[in-house]
Amino acid sequence: MDFATLFGFVGAFTMVALAILLGGSLLHFMDLPSILIVFAGTFGVVTISFSLQEIVRAQKVMLSVLINRSRDIEDVAIEVLQLSERARKEGVLALQQSMDALEDRPFLHKALVMVVDGTSADDVERIMKSEIAAMAMRHKRSADVFTRSAEIAPAMGLIGTLIGLVQMLGNLADPSTIGPSMAVALITTFYGAILANMVFSPIATKLARNSADEVLLNTVYLTGALSIGRQENPRRLEMMLNTVLPPAKRISYFE
Amino acid sequence: MDFATLFGFVGAFTMVALAILLGGSLLHFMDLPSILIVFAGTFGVVTISFSLQEIVRAQKVMLSVLINRSRDIEDVAIEVLQLSERARKEGVLALQQSMDALEDRPFLHKALVMVVDGTSADDVERIMKSEIAAMAMRHKRSADVFTRSAEIAPAMGLIGTLIGLVQMLGNLADPSTIGPSMAVALITTFYGAILANMVFSPIATKLARNSADEVLLNTVYLTGALSIGRQENPRRLEMMLNTVLPPAKRISYFE
Amino acid sequence: MDFATLFGFVGAFTMVALAILLGGSLLHFMDLPSILIVFAGTFGVVTISFSLQEIVRAQKVMLSVLINRSRDIEDVAIEVLQLSERARKEGVLALQQSMDALEDRPFLHKALVMVVDGTSADDVERIMKSEIAAMAMRHKRSADVFTRSAEIAPAMGLIGTLIGLVQMLGNLADPSTIGPSMAVALITTFYGAILANMVFSPIATKLARNSADEVLLNTVYLTGALSIGRQENPRRLEMMLNTVLPPAKRISYFE
Amino acid sequence: MDFATLFGFVGAFTMVALAILLGGSLLHFMDLPSILIVFAGTFGVVTISFSLQEIVRAQKVMLSVLINRSRDIEDVAIEVLQLSERARKEGVLALQQSMDALEDRPFLHKALVMVVDGTSADDVERIMKSEIAAMAMRHKRSADVFTRSAEIAPAMGLIGTLIGLVQMLGNLADPSTIGPSMAVALITTFYGAILANMVFSPIATKLARNSADEVLLNTVYLTGALSIGRQENPRRLEMMLNTVLPPAKRISYFE
Amino acid sequence: MDFATLFGFVGAFTMVALAILLGGSLLHFMDLPSILIVFAGTFGVVTISFSLQEIVRAQKVMLSVLINRSRDIEDVAIEVLQLSERARKEGVLALQQSMDALEDRPFLHKALVMVVDGTSADDVERIMKSEIAAMAMRHKRSADVFTRSAEIAPAMGLIGTLIGLVQMLGNLADPSTIGPSMAVALITTFYGAILANMVFSPIATKLARNSADEVLLNTVYLTGALSIGRQENPRRLEMMLNTVLPPAKRISYFE
Repeated sequence: MDFATLFGFVGAFTMVALAILLGGSLLHFMDLPSILIVFAGTFGVVTISFSLQEIVRAQKVMLSVLINRSRDIEDVAIEVLQLSERARKEGVLALQQSMDALEDRPFLHKALVMVVDGTSADDVERIMKSEIAAMAMRHKRSADVFTRSAEIAPAMGLIGTLIGLVQMLGNLADPSTIGPSMAVALITTFYGAILANMVFSPIATKLARNSADEVLLNTVYLTGALSIGRQENPRRLEMMLNTVLPPAKRISYFE
Repeated sequence: MDFATLFGFVGAFTMVALAILLGGSLLHFMDLPSILIVFAGTFGVVTISFSLQEIVRAQKVMLSVLINRSRDIEDVAIEVLQLSERARKEGVLALQQSMDALEDRPFLHKALVMVVDGTSADDVERIMKSEIAAMAMRHKRSADVFTRSAEIAPAMGLIGTLIGLVQMLGNLADPSTIGPSMAVALITTFYGAILANMVFSPIATKLARNSADEVLLNTVYLTGALSIGRQENPRRLEMMLNTVLPPAKRISYFE
Repeated sequence: MDFATLFGFVGAFTMVALAILLGGSLLHFMDLPSILIVFAGTFGVVTISFSLQEIVRAQKVMLSVLINRSRDIEDVAIEVLQLSERARKEGVLALQQSMDALEDRPFLHKALVMVVDGTSADDVERIMKSEIAAMAMRHKRSADVFTRSAEIAPAMGLIGTLIGLVQMLGNLADPSTIGPSMAVALITTFYGAILANMVFSPIATKLARNSADEVLLNTVYLTGALSIGRQENPRRLEMMLNTVLPPAKRISYFE
Repeated sequence: MDFATLFGFVGAFTMVALAILLGGSLLHFMDLPSILIVFAGTFGVVTISFSLQEIVRAQKVMLSVLINRSRDIEDVAIEVLQLSERARKEGVLALQQSMDALEDRPFLHKALVMVVDGTSADDVERIMKSEIAAMAMRHKRSADVFTRSAEIAPAMGLIGTLIGLVQMLGNLADPSTIGPSMAVALITTFYGAILANMVFSPIATKLARNSADEVLLNTVYLTGALSIGRQENPRRLEMMLNTVLPPAKRISYFE
Repeated sequence: MDFATLFGFVGAFTMVALAILLGGSLLHFMDLPSILIVFAGTFGVVTISFSLQEIVRAQKVMLSVLINRSRDIEDVAIEVLQLSERARKEGVLALQQSMDALEDRPFLHKALVMVVDGTSADDVERIMKSEIAAMAMRHKRSADVFTRSAEIAPAMGLIGTLIGLVQMLGNLADPSTIGPSMAVALITTFYGAILANMVFSPIATKLARNSADEVLLNTVYLTGALSIGRQENPRRLEMMLNTVLPPAKRISYFE
């Protein structure tokens, strides 16, 4: 569980609800036509640009952002060093016995299979780097669904408010209805601002950062696999890994 | 048919129509001078920057976006593997018999013709990559027509609203006309927001994504043609293709 | 004559004039102080950032955009192929007789002079590519004058409107003047929106596209000159040219 | 202490306080629900996208920006030249005695340790450049927390103002409350503008500049270490350093 | 003197003053608290992000923009050709006598000193290119002070207007003061728009263009020095220079 994300959502929406409740009832901010035009309208417009499949995938990704955490980069670096040390002591082929335990890290598994099969280090590097690039591209496409949603939601809010204003202004006979009509007209703008700034845009940012974390993690895996393939000294690998790890996460495995 | 796009258009416009109908008649949102200035004005301004030919092509592209779907990337990869296997077993020249069936994939056809003619792999790669780049550039120029339209439409809406406001403010003698006049003035802003956010901008995004799909597809074709030209093992080609395919679409042709 | 540009200008301004005339007189939209601050003010602010020489050149460029058209890329490709064929048949030196007819295409002329003089293909490529890059840079500087103008005009419009509002609000004694005063205050915003969105910004976009066309055209010339310099087969040149030409413009000169 | 930053904060906030006090009491600008929604709401939304750990680190970074100054680039260059001269006169191994004094410049220390250990210059360059890149990336992630906060704060201000407007418009019975209600509604917009433009955005800019300074400083260290590793003449090192130092900071150590 | 810049400033501010005077007195646009919050507030906020030293340097740069002009690129090219011709006829060492006259072009002087000292052309190119890059970076940092100021000034204007609005709305007892209070509240927005669009932003653009001119000029100097170092034919140098010079400035020195 990524508690920061959950805590952020709960905290921010509690603040908005509190601010509303201190001045009146939450009910004044519920309006069916406004919900239709902003929520369903945004969904419709986003569907124009993306396939349903991409939207479904983006929603799965959103859930996984709330639930999963990336592995700790420090643990990953130590795991890679242990594999390197074992390969150094018992030979590269000895890694074949460790393979089964790595099934749940498909990227590391695939790279090591190639190394054990004797694929050249250059080939392993080219293939796995193209895999990292393709993964980052797919993450970006999922994040794009939320980025676009964050652009569309306020626009649908504006369209809803314009509809309300035009209807109110066309019918000024009873001045006592002006206030409530304008209040309702503004609710779509309110929904659009909430959706864009408190839901879609934070998720898009979160996805971009998670993607950068995944890329760093797979770069550590790849650095390790290449080092094993080139039969380098594990101490040298440690030094290479420490250049990409943040200072607080640097490892000193060999002391 | 790309149902997501069609469904998105229909859904979004239904929401807007519903939101209007729940508060009055659709007729209050029809105004001839507003249509003139936003629709025809946007068309005119876009024509300044683009040749008529480009605008016509962009409109054809828009239709094809609604009607055509790219081929499934998985099928494309398998087709390429079958060609590679045949070239491996029966020799590159045997592909000449498969050529006629490929006339409707001009990119693959052209690349294979060069391979069969004995053009060097480096030459094939350079020529076909320049073709992919030129195609992406042309797609971008068509998408630019819609991107510009999405920028101009709200500006024309603002200009229309300013015209209405200046005329209303210059003639405040009869206060009862203020409301309806402002309502009409706002309709151009409403049109501009609809055109930009629910038509032009989603189409531009869709075109950009379709273009990325086409580039990926042609990259798969090119990877295959180059692998055939270099007489590589089809199993190696499968591994190369799997690095660019999304995980859910990866193929295991040789089992 | 580039009719699309002219037609676009005339069409867009006709729409605005029509929208005004349907609600009143054009005279309500003429105001001398507003013209001063938006038109002369924008000109002044742009002059701060650019030399007078650049602004004059940008205005010449604007006129040439309305009047000139680039040559058709297809004709250019065929002309290059004819030169290549002649060089193939009669030797590179035979091109010297064709040179005079090329005086009005200075880029092609310069590249061929170097080729005929025996300059190495690498040198020709480096020199002419640096020339293309310098040309694109100069085009960008002219387009920048209009891009900046499109940013400044609405700002001057806002400043004018603020002046009008402050003066009106400071003197509310006679309520009957509020409406007309606000109407006049809004006219500068109207001018700024018109200038930015219907004049400067479309011209900047047009210039950017024309520049891209010129770059493509000179790339075709350069590809041809290099191919002649390397004494390649004209059929190979045709293939190279077809990779950069749009599908509808591809040539099949040798049938 | 970086007095410019402190002086800027104090100065800017004094101006705002003065402007308020000249027209009334500071108390009119204090409102608890507004503080809740803008301050706590912004914190909540930013937490969605970043881990708590990153937010805590960003706050530490903010403090250090106020308190620490980078070392003077001129002193750094001279220190590097002194090391280079000593290595030239007494041999690279003599640097081992200077090492302890360099413990508080971990980057220089690490690079020199590698040089003294006989690591090849190419390896030192690759490893230390990857370290500089990783450092710049970490700085960017901290600055991103403030960049995002500067985007979110005005959005929360807008949301707060919309809540106030909807509540006021829904209850227009007593006209005398309209003014004060709108005043309160606007205070969240005021908070959002203050937080974004006078706190978050200046800190993000400051962090970006500090990061660029750190990169330049480490580049000077790296240039020195590589030059020592290649046993180059210190005069040549001086010339290399002077190309990256600003003219006013150039050194002439050897006269 | 760069008359375009001076003329632009004077012209634009005259237009604004005229527009004000046609509708009333300039005095209505003078307000001490507004000046405090926008002018001193912007200065304070910018100081947070930049060191005092950078702000002072940026102000010097602003003055020099008004007073100095870059040398004419054509003269620079001819000067370089003359040096190249002399080196060709009398030997590279003969340039030593021309050196003293070049003291006021430090870039050319430094490059030629290296050439005369026999530094390899590759080294000269690397060192001088790094110097050009460092100069462009410093220019960018000075321009950034104005770019940031152009972003902050309207924000401070908005903050000032919000303060005025909140104070006015909180105290609606005497309706006759509403107009004048709003007028004063808008003056900070007016100041912010003037400062950003008519002062800071044009200066930032001007600095960016001057920097591009300086880079071009130093590129011409470097091209010349390298050509002299490689003892190339001055005619070849002329051809190289003409590729970077604008067509109207091309030189034909050897006829």
